[in-house]
Formats: sequence, structure tokens, C-alpha cells
Amino acid sequence: MSNPTLLILPGDGIGPEVMGQVTRVIDWFGEKRGLAFDVEEDLVGGAAYDAHGTPLHDDTMAKALEADAVLLGAVGGPKYDDLDFSVKPERGLLRLRKEMDLFSNLRPAQCFDALADFSSLKKDIVAGLDIMIVRELTSGVYFGEPRGIFEEGNERVGINTQRYTESEIDRVARSAFELARRRNNKVCSMEKANVMESGILWREVVQKVHDEDYPDVELSHMYADNGAMQLVRAPKQFDVILTDNLFGDILSDCAAMLTGSLGMLPSASLGAPNAEGRPKALYEPVHGSAPDITGQGKANPIACILSFAMALRYSFDQGDEATRLEQAVEKVLADGARTADLMGPEDGTPISTSEMGDAILAAL
Amino acid sequence: MSNPTLLILPGDGIGPEVMGQVTRVIDWFGEKRGLAFDVEEDLVGGAAYDAHGTPLHDDTMAKALEADAVLLGAVGGPKYDDLDFSVKPERGLLRLRKEMDLFSNLRPAQCFDALADFSSLKKDIVAGLDIMIVRELTSGVYFGEPRGIFEEGNERVGINTQRYTESEIDRVARSAFELARRRNNKVCSMEKANVMESGILWREVVQKVHDEDYPDVELSHMYADNGAMQLVRAPKQFDVILTDNLFGDILSDCAAMLTGSLGMLPSASLGAPNAEGRPKALYEPVHGSAPDITGQGKANPIACILSFAMALRYSFDQGDEATRLEQAVEKVLADGARTADLMGPEDGTPISTSEMGDAILAAL
Ligand SMILES: CC(C)[C@H](C(=O)O)[C@@H](O)C(=O)O
Ligand SMILES: CC(C)[C@H](C(=O)O)[C@@H](O)C(=O)O
Repeated sequence: MSNPTLLILPGDGIGPEVMGQVTRVIDWFGEKRGLAFDVEEDLVGGAAYDAHGTPLHDDTMAKALEADAVLLGAVGGPKYDDLDFSVKPERGLLRLRKEMDLFSNLRPAQCFDALADFSSLKKDIVAGLDIMIVRELTSGVYFGEPRGIFEEGNERVGINTQRYTESEIDRVARSAFELARRRNNKVCSMEKANVMESGILWREVVQKVHDEDYPDVELSHMYADNGAMQLVRAPKQFDVILTDNLFGDILSDCAAMLTGSLGMLPSASLGAPNAEGRPKALYEPVHGSAPDITGQGKANPIACILSFAMALRYSFDQGDEATRLEQAVEKVLADGARTADLMGPEDGTPISTSEMGDAILAAL
Repeated sequence: MSNPTLLILPGDGIGPEVMGQVTRVIDWFGEKRGLAFDVEEDLVGGAAYDAHGTPLHDDTMAKALEADAVLLGAVGGPKYDDLDFSVKPERGLLRLRKEMDLFSNLRPAQCFDALADFSSLKKDIVAGLDIMIVRELTSGVYFGEPRGIFEEGNERVGINTQRYTESEIDRVARSAFELARRRNNKVCSMEKANVMESGILWREVVQKVHDEDYPDVELSHMYADNGAMQLVRAPKQFDVILTDNLFGDILSDCAAMLTGSLGMLPSASLGAPNAEGRPKALYEPVHGSAPDITGQGKANPIACILSFAMALRYSFDQGDEATRLEQAVEKVLADGARTADLMGPEDGTPISTSEMGDAILAAL
């Protein structure tokens, strides 16, 4: 039987640096745990644009559709700010999400005990925090048509379209309810149904899916502005938060920052399961390409490494191996290993990206 | 010469309770400072729906267009959750904003010294915080067409349209730059230009207005998701934040909650100045109708009282009188007066809405 395949797309900025450590971890699992992967590497984002004039080559897209899982680093950077919209680095990532049909984006916001002090929030507000944001990822204002900048009278107008069909809402709602059943059985759905008709449909469909198929899960609805407030005020009130593409973008970043652990947070973007029950899947850290620290060996590889742990769990049914990796990370943190993002200016000397990789391999 | 006119719209939930205290303050300024207003009161939101079957009667709309300033309490509540979208309480407020053409919504996020401990954020992160969010209020996805829930194939689709013209962006950008000049001369503009064409146009127009007419103001641009992160991480990096209607809704609530002073925060919604230099204007607290505490005398009237202070400053050119009122509020807080929202469960007995009103009148 052939090995499962992994497509690695390091991308831009600190992407290649953090992915370098992930590759070492993948190798370790191959050698020590008999979990061999066939790994292929390719370009995405600005790196792909530099090589091919497009942020995602068709060949790469084809490979991503073939692979059992895709690991992505980060895309974007100031170098590409003035590129035309159609070839911006972000379009590469958005194309992957859309063509792989990765409608369910899981973004944990988890506060690691060893780092609770590092949050800008009071320790008692965030210690032990463990929420999961389920963000719809293939529709909404990110992809709706019409879109563009048009002439109108004697001026221009910028237009985007927020659009959700019942079936798009239905399938992502199911993934949130399924996830809640394996956690604390609570879903809070967020939209602006008081202002947007798309929010009304969202709320209605989520409620219907709940009533018909998940009545055992506790469901509440909240306006997204109140959701942002409640995340800041008392984030532990939540278990799973279900929301659309744009609100999810903002709210998940807000939630991630609450934890003080931004350099620690992985994410999974999942599609529908295939015949073997394996979903199309892309895993990436929540943090971005961090151009300000690129190439300095300062980046924290943990978010990207934990994204591989999510791949082990969600794509390869290796929950125990995922836990093994997560525990190695926790041990390393408990032992005091800190990259620069996890320290205050007076906390001593941080370790480098590769030293963090060394420490995690040692702990494994 | 006739007195300036004020239209008071207490609205729903705690709106009438907090507005009751504002009326006392208005009377005080008439009696003691010779600032007499002709005050008229009317209905908005659910209260208007109950009386007239519409969340804003045409007569009320006409009065609002005539008045020198409008003071609003809050709209909405669970009682109205199942109303048809077209008559929801919120539509009353949105109609006022749109027909009065109140394109510039000023939302201060200010941390009051006496309350810094009450934030969920660490004291050093928020103490002394004083930022101003300028939110575009009459366009974007709140008002764009087409909108609605439509049949498509054999399912329904919910659609809203994000739309900004150059002139809409231009005028709100100017109001942000003007404001920055009277503060710390910094504007950070937030959008998702990496994903939305409307964000590209937004960024371009803001930059152009800056370069042509406000080169002395320091301007930066930030993606709105990063903006949410930065607000949580280090809010004091900002002075004025300029953003669109929907991002402004979420980001201003997030910023307000950071301060721990939600019951304290006023807002002003301003239109273009008329011949006498007086803008069309509506003032309202940032907090909502708070149905959970309605009718219990628990609500904090300060946000609504400070909204009247903003009216004194922005509509009636009475900056000194506004400062007088703001200082009275600060004194009362420094002396330890606390409504329930400003206390932890172990902090003793809170004072009531009207006792807070008493204290402020005494301090005046
Ligand atoms: C890079 C960008 C296109 C992306 C998004 O807006 O979705 C990012 O912010 C994210 O949250 O994954
Ligand atoms: C009540 C609602 C329509 C309103 C909005 O979404 O603008 C409110 O949240 C606000 O921020 O003033």
C-alpha cells in the first residue's frame, strides 16, 4: 500500500522558516512511529507569483486536489502590496479554499497554561480558555458576485456581494454541531440578522438543522457585534462559535489574540469526506506571514507544527499520535522554552525557530 | 431668538430609564446655565411599532429632520425578535441614520481612570486609553442593493451588497482627518483590501484625501482582522480609527468593551454642516437596550448623559459646558458612585439609575 501524500506549501514571509521545522517533525514520525508520508513541496502566494506570475499555478492546484492533505505556511507581504488584485498572494490561498471546497474552517482559540500570563487579558479571564470557531470558508462576501470596481455616473463604486445559500449554511452548521458533540455540546451562532437578510437566512437554517438533527446540542444566537464584545468580556462562556466567512475572519483573530498564544494556534480547513471518510483538508497556522521578522530565525514554529498535529487527527485518524505531538509541545513550554513572541522585553533571551524545533523533537 | 430644538427618542429597554436622567440634566442646564432647549419627545423602535405598527412614524422622521439635534436611547429587544425584517426596531434607527444622512459616526473608546480595574484587560494595557472610532454610517452592506432572501433553483439564497462610492468614502475620511487634527493627529484606516474590491477603493480614496488635503496627519492602513487583533493586543497604539459601516459595528463594540466602561460610552452620528455650520446630528449611548435589566432601575445613565455632552460640543458649540458635564461625571466616579455594571459581585451595593442622576446633578 502506498503512503498517504502531503503537499507542503510554505508560502511567504516566515512560512518557509516555520515549515522547515514541520518537515523535521514529519520525518520523525516516519522514522520513529512508522508513519511515512509521501511529501511534495510547491509554491503558493507571493513565492508562486515570483516564479510563475500567478499566486497559484494550475499544476499546484491539481496536486492539492490529489493530495491527502495540504500544509500551508502563510501568504502575503508588503513586497506584493501593489500587485493587481487578481494576482495578489491571497488569491492563491482563496483559490485553494474554493476549489478544494473547504467549507469548514476550524480555528481553536486555546490558552496554554504556561502562557496565560502573556495575554493582554487578565489571567482569570483567559486561563483554561478552550473555544473553537467554525468559520464558513468558501462563500459569503469573499466569493460572491457581482464584485469589482465600476464606473457609475462620474465616479467609481466598489462592490462586493454577501451571499449564502441554504445548503451552504446547512453543511457548515452540521460540522459545528458534530464538533460540539465531541466537546462541550454548545454552539453559539453569530450573524447580523438585525441588519442583514443573509443573516436572517443564516439564523433560520442553523436553527432548523439543530431542531431536526442536533436537538441535544445547546444552541444560541448572537449578533456578531455583541459576539465581539462577549469574546473580550468573558470568552469562557463559549464552546463552539459558528459564523460566516467575514465575521469569522475578524472574530477568530480577535479570539486568537485573547489567548496570548497567537504563535501557537493551528487551524484546519475541511471539505466533505470522500468515500474513505477522509475530508479534503488544508492545515495552516492562524498567524500570518509576519514580514517584520522574516528571515531572522525569530518565528515561532509551534502553530505550524500543531497544524500538522491537526492533520494527523482529522485527515489520518491518528488521534493518539496527534496527542503525542501536542503533549511534546506542552512539555517544551512547561520547561520554559520561549520564542520571541512568547516573551516580554524583560524576560531574557528567546530561543530561535530551529531551537524550538530541536526542543520539540527532543521532547518527542 | 427661539431656543435650539432637541428631539428625544428614548426607544426601548433601558432607553426610557437612562433618558429620564438626561432630561433632568437638560433641565439643569436650562435653569442654571441659561441654555434653554425646546425639547420634544417621541417614539422609535419597538415602542413606535407598538403604537403605530412601524418602528419610525413619518411624523417622527420629519421632526428629526427639523430638530437641531436628536438624542436616542436604545432600540430592540426579544419581544420584537419575530417581527418581519421591515418593521424590526432596528429599522427605525437605520432610517434615521439614512434619511438624516449621518455619515460619520464618532465612537470614543475611553477608559475612565476610576474604572481601569474593571476591564477584562490588564490595567496597563487600557489605563489612559482614549481612541476614537469613525465609522461610516449611511452606506456599505447596511444599505446596499440588491438585498433580500430569494429563490434560486430549489433553495433560497440570502443576499446583501457591500457598496461604497468614492464620494461616500471621501467625506467620511475627511471627518476622520479633521478629528485627528484636534487629537493626536493619527488615523488608521481599516478594511479587507486583500479580499474585497470595495476595500481596495476604500484604501485608495482615503490615501488620496490624505495626500491632497491632510498630508500633516499620520495615516496608516490595516486589514480589519489584524485591526481586531491589535485592538486586543495594544489598543493605545491608535488615535483615530477610520472604517466602514460593518467593520465599524464590530470593531467599535470590541474597542468599547476593552475599556471596561461600556455603560459609560456615548456616540455622535453627524451629517454635513448646514449654512450655520451645524451638522445634522444624532447622539446615543454605545450600549444597547439591555432587556435583561430593563425596568429594574439598574441601568447606568452615564453613557446617555455623556451623549448629551457630545451634543453640547458638536451641535451647539458649547465645548465648555460639555466639559463641565464630563467633569461632573468624572468627579462622581472618583467619589465612588457605581451602578451595577461598574461593580464586581463582591464590591458592595450598587446605586440605582436615578441615584446616579442625583449624584451627577449634585456634582454639577
Ligand atoms: C490572508 C487572508 C486572505 C485570510 C482571510 O482573510 O481569510 C486570512 O486573514 C485568514 O484569516 O486566513
Ligand atoms: C442596533 C443596530 C442596528 C446597530 C448597528 O448594527 O449599527 C447597533 O449595533 C449599533 O452599533 O449602533
